[in-house]
Amino acid sequence: MQKGLQLVCGAALLGALAAAASAQDIKPDRAIKYRQGILQAQGWNMAPMAAMVKGEKPYNKDEFLLRATWLSELAVMPWEGFIPGSDTGAPTKAKPEIWKEPAKFKQLQEALESNTLKLVAAAKIGTLDAVKGPFGDVGKACSNCHDDFRAK
Amino acid sequence: MQKGLQLVCGAALLGALAAAASAQDIKPDRAIKYRQGILQAQGWNMAPMAAMVKGEKPYNKDEFLLRATWLSELAVMPWEGFIPGSDTGAPTKAKPEIWKEPAKFKQLQEALESNTLKLVAAAKIGTLDAVKGPFGDVGKACSNCHDDFRAK
Repeated sequence: MQKGLQLVCGAALLGALAAAASAQDIKPDRAIKYRQGILQAQGWNMAPMAAMVKGEKPYNKDEFLLRATWLSELAVMPWEGFIPGSDTGAPTKAKPEIWKEPAKFKQLQEALESNTLKLVAAAKIGTLDAVKGPFGDVGKACSNCHDDFRAK
Repeated sequence: MQKGLQLVCGAALLGALAAAASAQDIKPDRAIKYRQGILQAQGWNMAPMAAMVKGEKPYNKDEFLLRATWLSELAVMPWEGFIPGSDTGAPTKAKPEIWKEPAKFKQLQEALESNTLKLVAAAKIGTLDAVKGPFGDVGKACSNCHDDFRAK
């Protein structure tokens, strides 16, 4: 599925999926484990891109594009794991504000999703100069959400 | 990126990435956590598809297609986490055979990847009858690999 289409489909289905997840009696610890698995996989892909942008690792356009693509795929996945009641049930840094300010939380999700798509587009150009700015924007999207919704 | 292209790119890069991962001194516990996060996310998406196929949950063609798509994206990701030396370092069910029989392990990875792509194609048809067989094949691909390479 094309990224743009997936994003639209994902967004349209997310509310329904979250409701379905609750209805299926998914236990909070399962949801917490799921979302943490995806979020740490995002970090796994961010790390080598960050190393390339910082010059700590040689820029490889093929690896950068693959990492950016995988990141954009992972960017849409974790949110359905924040089911109601999953603020506890397993160790989690998710702050209660996630469920108190859903519109703001959703806005920051969408910022990550759109910024990762821009990073993929930049990575296709295939130069380090092209990806530096978009990569910085992705990093800011991560930290914007962490600042408000992840405990330290 | 189109799935087919991503699969090719992913396959071509995997050897290089695994080598790079070792060279970057990724610690075994990080690699274990990464691959487990992706593998359990595969299971997270399998569960609602299984429920639909078994008739425990109404078939929803949009959700099924999204789950199949996400599964196909996740299907290519975990393997780079099986870096040399990561048979220990954190709790893991990965059997030593993974590093003793790399060709066989790779063959089973590719079987999962190609079967998830077939499931996506079937899900686009949009009927329960169309997805039942391909979903069964994906399940078999999972269990074939678990039988040989995952401890009980």
